[in-house]
Amino acid sequence: MENEQPVLRRPRPMMRATPRDMIAPRSSKAPHTRVGPGVKKAPPSASPLLRIIPLGGLEEIGRNTMCVEYGNDIIVLDLGFMFPREDMPGIDYVLADTTYLQENKEKIRGIFITHGHMDHMGAIPYLIKRLGMPPVYGTRLTIGMVRDRLEEFNLSKVVKLVEIGADYVLQLGVFSLSFFRVNHNIPDSVGVAIKTPIGTIIDTGDWKFDHTPQDERPTEFGKIARLGQDGVLLLCSDSTNSEKPGYSISEKKLQETIELLFSKAKGRIIVTTFASLISRIQQVINASHDLGRKIAVTGMSMEKAITTALDLGFLKVPKGTFIKLNTIDNYPPNKVTILSTGSQGQESSALGRMARGEHKQIKINETDTIVLSSSPIPGNERSVAAVMDLLLGFGAKVVYNKLLDIHSSGHAQQEEQKLMLQLVQPKYFMPIHGERHHLVQHAETAMEMGYAKENVLVLANGSVVEFNKHQDVRVLKDKLELEDVLVDGLGVGDVGSVVLRDRQVMSQDGMMVIIAAVNRKTGKVTGNLDVISRGFIYVKNAEDLINEVKVMATKMIESYDVKEQQGWTNLRSKMRDDIGDHLFKRTERRPMILPVIMQV
Amino acid sequence: MENEQPVLRRPRPMMRATPRDMIAPRSSKAPHTRVGPGVKKAPPSASPLLRIIPLGGLEEIGRNTMCVEYGNDIIVLDLGFMFPREDMPGIDYVLADTTYLQENKEKIRGIFITHGHMDHMGAIPYLIKRLGMPPVYGTRLTIGMVRDRLEEFNLSKVVKLVEIGADYVLQLGVFSLSFFRVNHNIPDSVGVAIKTPIGTIIDTGDWKFDHTPQDERPTEFGKIARLGQDGVLLLCSDSTNSEKPGYSISEKKLQETIELLFSKAKGRIIVTTFASLISRIQQVINASHDLGRKIAVTGMSMEKAITTALDLGFLKVPKGTFIKLNTIDNYPPNKVTILSTGSQGQESSALGRMARGEHKQIKINETDTIVLSSSPIPGNERSVAAVMDLLLGFGAKVVYNKLLDIHSSGHAQQEEQKLMLQLVQPKYFMPIHGERHHLVQHAETAMEMGYAKENVLVLANGSVVEFNKHQDVRVLKDKLELEDVLVDGLGVGDVGSVVLRDRQVMSQDGMMVIIAAVNRKTGKVTGNLDVISRGFIYVKNAEDLINEVKVMATKMIESYDVKEQQGWTNLRSKMRDDIGDHLFKRTERRPMILPVIMQV
Repeated sequence: MENEQPVLRRPRPMMRATPRDMIAPRSSKAPHTRVGPGVKKAPPSASPLLRIIPLGGLEEIGRNTMCVEYGNDIIVLDLGFMFPREDMPGIDYVLADTTYLQENKEKIRGIFITHGHMDHMGAIPYLIKRLGMPPVYGTRLTIGMVRDRLEEFNLSKVVKLVEIGADYVLQLGVFSLSFFRVNHNIPDSVGVAIKTPIGTIIDTGDWKFDHTPQDERPTEFGKIARLGQDGVLLLCSDSTNSEKPGYSISEKKLQETIELLFSKAKGRIIVTTFASLISRIQQVINASHDLGRKIAVTGMSMEKAITTALDLGFLKVPKGTFIKLNTIDNYPPNKVTILSTGSQGQESSALGRMARGEHKQIKINETDTIVLSSSPIPGNERSVAAVMDLLLGFGAKVVYNKLLDIHSSGHAQQEEQKLMLQLVQPKYFMPIHGERHHLVQHAETAMEMGYAKENVLVLANGSVVEFNKHQDVRVLKDKLELEDVLVDGLGVGDVGSVVLRDRQVMSQDGMMVIIAAVNRKTGKVTGNLDVISRGFIYVKNAEDLINEVKVMATKMIESYDVKEQQGWTNLRSKMRDDIGDHLFKRTERRPMILPVIMQV
Repeated sequence: MENEQPVLRRPRPMMRATPRDMIAPRSSKAPHTRVGPGVKKAPPSASPLLRIIPLGGLEEIGRNTMCVEYGNDIIVLDLGFMFPREDMPGIDYVLADTTYLQENKEKIRGIFITHGHMDHMGAIPYLIKRLGMPPVYGTRLTIGMVRDRLEEFNLSKVVKLVEIGADYVLQLGVFSLSFFRVNHNIPDSVGVAIKTPIGTIIDTGDWKFDHTPQDERPTEFGKIARLGQDGVLLLCSDSTNSEKPGYSISEKKLQETIELLFSKAKGRIIVTTFASLISRIQQVINASHDLGRKIAVTGMSMEKAITTALDLGFLKVPKGTFIKLNTIDNYPPNKVTILSTGSQGQESSALGRMARGEHKQIKINETDTIVLSSSPIPGNERSVAAVMDLLLGFGAKVVYNKLLDIHSSGHAQQEEQKLMLQLVQPKYFMPIHGERHHLVQHAETAMEMGYAKENVLVLANGSVVEFNKHQDVRVLKDKLELEDVLVDGLGVGDVGSVVLRDRQVMSQDGMMVIIAAVNRKTGKVTGNLDVISRGFIYVKNAEDLINEVKVMATKMIESYDVKEQQGWTNLRSKMRDDIGDHLFKRTERRPMILPVIMQV
């Protein structure tokens, strides 16, 4: 029986986690299915249902978060963040709404992270306390990246981090988790198979198939096929590249491209990529070493990721290859490679500073070759192009994705997605990780292979899927009502839709404050009526307009009977409307109007 | 001699412009070269130089504007607008800085527009008065599109519009203009050859080579080759697609793709594209007619563009093909095609309204096929994806560029760009229309073909290029100092960098107004000190923070000696700094702070 199994089977002697870390309390309470708003409770007498609730990563790219629940046990798969949409000005990151998990936190047996990228683990430091500090599980590099992230928040000592090997079996409550290695562009990525009393669920994490990967082992096809043969209830699979036909390019092929490119460079080579693309960094190290180039690193996040990957043995670097940034001028330019942050055109990144001529150690010149080795995240195209154009302004050679394929994506394309489906042969299929059009396309791929529409679950964040003991599926009519949890500076969730809307209004047409001191006795405006505007119009050229506003406002205030109206609210509202309309008529702009009345 | 030529030679009898429209005053004044700030005047005794000044469209996509000057004559090539960058919140369009032209407006002999797209003619209504109302020249459809645009501003009656045929020769001052048809995705596009006393300049406009174009004649290769054989001083050529190897796809090929797609649709077909892509609209008409589908149009700009193109004979539509939008339900769904605006995901467009279920006549259902037939303009990717996802939510089939190549670009790719260079064989080459990386790549293509670096002019807006009578080139060290001219509502140029910066600050972290009434005699704050914030933080959860600000502000005000300090300026500045620092420490946000002190 499942329950009789040891909590953790360890096939290898060199495991690092102590066994007691793995012991999760098994619940003996009667199953109950307390749920969030909008979802009806299951009748307490019913036998437990298996419940899957995606909380993030569906109908969007990022903040992957999935809840798997059976009776009194919940496990959370991934806990990532997302970059803000353009209608979220000033926001740093967007997290999944974990209210449902918070309300059921006593059930959470652990968080499993599939790999060490921010869209899969970046939300941990913000949310782990709210979830009752459950232990976090992952492979060695994944846990290393999580630890780095937690250190920034002084949390690395208080969160229980548990390292697992890909061959372990991890018992969390009623769930038995096993793992299979997949390929991605960071080593130590795994998919997870969750044995539940009702059937096995597979979550692929981010993956592609790569028969000649970069310093990783190939995908464990055997394990996946075996899981498939044993019977899989539900496959949840990565949809990021579901629109791309064919197969993804192998990292080995990319290594060749990079070597060719490097062999042609006559001066320094400056490569920028995501700090967490450890595979790409290894390729740059290999190509540099072959050509006798030393490597310097610039940019905090890049330094940190490299240090962690080196410490944990996930980067192979011949001795003496890395040099300090302030020694690069001691070497001939054609013997130097620089690894830099800034692949998304970020202003404050190392590459951003180079582009503006503000980097202390690195001044770009016409012998430099700059390689942008990652595609812009949608929304960043223009800032990336702007940085490129600044670099070209120094006469440097700039190589980017339109000129040469130097960014192999880490995600499976259509033929790989089909092969995954063939291997796993799930009864139900749920495309995850992608905007709605990605999910729909992935679903169509499955249906082309013969899957019936009712067995393909194209869902949204907050959808609640239930399987009963007969493996019948039901998607609840009511979704959980989710709200974006916004991170802005130190605040998590304290910026809501009102604050965002105000920011948008002010960013479009600015604002105008109208301040009047009103004599308590006479009801007349005393002294000056002040009008201050920002972001609306260049005031020095708009004196007439401002005077019109002053005249209007004075008239409205002095003809208002504050006692009869029981306060200033009605006046303020009328001032906003009438003065707003007047400004629109004169300018076709709608600044935010803030009337302030002070009785003196 | 050039000067003896008739002002206009008309090889065809059916021209529409009256000859007197064409008579531009020839100047007899001594040549002088008055220039804008930053450019030294040429010595008055020197023989005139030919001067080329790109004012828009270099190091950017859009607002194409070029000044060609010799002695006392200027012609302007194109006068387009650009869409705002993301650091220009609230802005509608960005125009070229035409200060140089305004300072020399008495020299302007005319504006020549190469084709009827907004990035080539959209700025005319905003700038034509400032330029002294020079006549605007173009081919029939181009002038039709310009007229439409001017009508929106009640200017179509006051601007002199002159229609030319592609075989005309147009004498404007010292310049003799002839034309050659090119292919693009709007009919009646031409390139222009300008014979000057120093040599011939060619501006290609937007172009590609298409041997099987859509209802256009093929490019006039013969004319181009002949110009090349007669000797060309300078070629200015479109760089938009300079990063794409090979040849562009023929519009005929695209017609086949559209027909195949249409033949598979089981219900209504809804196609969205730019209203000005007349060639695409013709393809939709053809495919619909072949399948017995009627066509309805929704969206103002689409209706207008189709009406104009029909009136001028640039769309061929069998009788009875168009139906009114409110009659579509009288036809079976598989006999209806709808042409709609909204290809860029614009909220207020017809497709945007369909996506939100707010379109009065069209409710999307699962039998609809929606075709997005244009690539997102960089920066619009996310809004396009959002609209697609809403449409998919109705169960409709959505076809877009990642799934099927249904947007053939109207711009030449590398092999075509090479052929253009081979045909024209210019002495100098200036890549135009493109961000810096596009221009650099186009230049590299030319250099691969053997052009010497010093004959390839990779320039910026405001660069001043001079050719002397020996055809020697000189790029002046000082560029014209240009500023973005921003259109915001009714204002043209009244929003500058200060207003934009304020909008950005407020969009990131909001703002806080601190209002204190101070007793003139005691220097004490009387009554309440008001703190109003918008877009900064959800105030109800931040009472502590607001109270801290009140305490800080009161203390600062009451310990300030307004007489000694000669006014409140120093206090306000200190309040901004200190309270700003405090808020940052507490929130890591930097709202704009506006202290208002009222003496009562």
